[in-house]
Amino acid sequence: MAARTIDWSDGAIVIIDQTRLPFVERFVRIETVDELIAAIQMLAVRGAMALGVAGALGVALAASRIEEAGTGRSADTERALSEAAERIAHARPTAVNLPWGVARALAVREGGTAAMIAEALRVRDEDIAANRAIGDRGARLLAGARSLLTHCNAGALAGVENGTALSVVRALHEDAGVDEVLVCETRPLLQGSRLTSWELGRMGVVNHVIVDAAASGLIVGGRVQAVVVGADRVTANGDVANKVGTLGHALSAQRAGVPFIVAVPESTIDAATPNGGAIEIEQRDASEVLSVDGHRIAAEGTLAYNPAFDVTPSDLVSAIVTERRVIRASRGERPDDPDAGGPE
Amino acid sequence: MAARTIDWSDGAIVIIDQTRLPFVERFVRIETVDELIAAIQMLAVRGAMALGVAGALGVALAASRIEEAGTGRSADTERALSEAAERIAHARPTAVNLPWGVARALAVREGGTAAMIAEALRVRDEDIAANRAIGDRGARLLAGARSLLTHCNAGALAGVENGTALSVVRALHEDAGVDEVLVCETRPLLQGSRLTSWELGRMGVVNHVIVDAAASGLIVGGRVQAVVVGADRVTANGDVANKVGTLGHALSAQRAGVPFIVAVPESTIDAATPNGGAIEIEQRDASEVLSVDGHRIAAEGTLAYNPAFDVTPSDLVSAIVTERRVIRASRGERPDDPDAGGPE
Repeated sequence: MAARTIDWSDGAIVIIDQTRLPFVERFVRIETVDELIAAIQMLAVRGAMALGVAGALGVALAASRIEEAGTGRSADTERALSEAAERIAHARPTAVNLPWGVARALAVREGGTAAMIAEALRVRDEDIAANRAIGDRGARLLAGARSLLTHCNAGALAGVENGTALSVVRALHEDAGVDEVLVCETRPLLQGSRLTSWELGRMGVVNHVIVDAAASGLIVGGRVQAVVVGADRVTANGDVANKVGTLGHALSAQRAGVPFIVAVPESTIDAATPNGGAIEIEQRDASEVLSVDGHRIAAEGTLAYNPAFDVTPSDLVSAIVTERRVIRASRGERPDDPDAGGPE
Repeated sequence: MAARTIDWSDGAIVIIDQTRLPFVERFVRIETVDELIAAIQMLAVRGAMALGVAGALGVALAASRIEEAGTGRSADTERALSEAAERIAHARPTAVNLPWGVARALAVREGGTAAMIAEALRVRDEDIAANRAIGDRGARLLAGARSLLTHCNAGALAGVENGTALSVVRALHEDAGVDEVLVCETRPLLQGSRLTSWELGRMGVVNHVIVDAAASGLIVGGRVQAVVVGADRVTANGDVANKVGTLGHALSAQRAGVPFIVAVPESTIDAATPNGGAIEIEQRDASEVLSVDGHRIAAEGTLAYNPAFDVTPSDLVSAIVTERRVIRASRGERPDDPDAGGPE
């Protein structure tokens, strides 16, 4: 990526508007907490790591605005910041990185606005370094794999500069070359055909978009050597919440006997949630299923049901790759045990 | 259905144009073999049983046109009929019912055009009766199931008057009531959201459209008590070729421990094909993946891969329900053994 997906500039957050890609490359300046929450909810900024950075930068933004409007009464300031932080943290219910990023910036609130901005920038820089480490570790794990399948977008657009699953693809491609990536289009919002295919093209990786339903036959039929995805949340036992459709790919990979790899930063691991059954699954509006880019595809009166995520049980997860370790969840290694897993 | 999906009227085939549903209810008169092949290839007429009837009526149509244009030389007539039959039989590669219907009508060619028309109408009437029998038998097998999931369209629109999988839903609903059917939208051509949801609405069955990728989480999460689908071809050992996405639902049903039921006429059983590995999978145009109803959803230059079917291995198939028997493929009962399976 030439420019960062999300960054801080002149006292405001700047994001690339992902709802317009790949047709329009538009950067948006976000000046208020309300604008940030709207951008998060319409998925203009999305993906686990970018949301962590958005959470931290959001607190910095809130502190800046409150300071500018300042009443001078510190109790008011404190209350306003806490309220803003709470709203940002819960802008989307399933993503654990959002409250994690918020908490990171809030933890230094005693140092004032400047400290919160500095901490948010640290979250951003750590994200960039973590993405690179995840890519390198994942590529070592999958050394020799030349055909891969991925779902949704766990690329640069889901992070700041690099991404998670696509960082693995990038490292594999730089090492020995990748012949092909199958990109699930990822209905309803088509992050695969819109974002992932565009990113892979910029990396020079040959990729074919498939409808999500085609993945199972292609995986079981031996077309790919591994499935690599990101995740929105990994629970204490290694269950994985990710974009709806991920579970089907994991079942197919198990049937095919190929690795199912989850590439995430450590911040995605939610040790406080014991397992996938305890995760609240975000239900999104039916209109996303009944239309494509505002183009209606079903008759008036049709009902739809639109869960945004599914949960892949840990026994189907060959390995969780983070910036620090490889956790083999299907062998019972627990992400909430900091000593579980190993460097490779 | 008030009108039949496909029928014979005044020396021509009449179909409801399924590419326009549910927005436009339009019947099309098909006067030539070329028009019929075009209609089959653009999926204006589709579904295993309707294709069987289309094959038989197609031969009747070809015979009528050849007779009208008649050279009087019987060798010419014979050759023209054989060529037309061959073209119709291979208009789409995966559907076994198409050559089956062609063969039915051709078998009486010695009786002349009138005999071929009469045989094609018999195929139509047998289809209607078989659909009813499949529905009743499937409903007995699933007695008590109140929530179901289906894929693509195996309804009246895939047959003449009733359909296969939706005939089971209809019979269950008439018996004890069905609370809900989850309808997979079935990308790329959206037969689920366009056709199945519309048909279920006309039956008075509550249904929710879901993106195909949502099925796995909902099945594994216990939302449905059975998965019921049709099929385009069942091989000698019980492997099932059906619309792409079916395999993922079967893997999910196995994981959830709920029945995965395939509702088909006996004519869908292809005893000459030993197993799914021997089936040619139709590859359709990339543009279907990269656009929706002509509305482009990916950047210029994006590549796509578009297999129309997948193969579900017999060990994942709880039961194959036909108008004559229930074959428990996952217990090793073989469809090509006419004595395998039982009435219930």
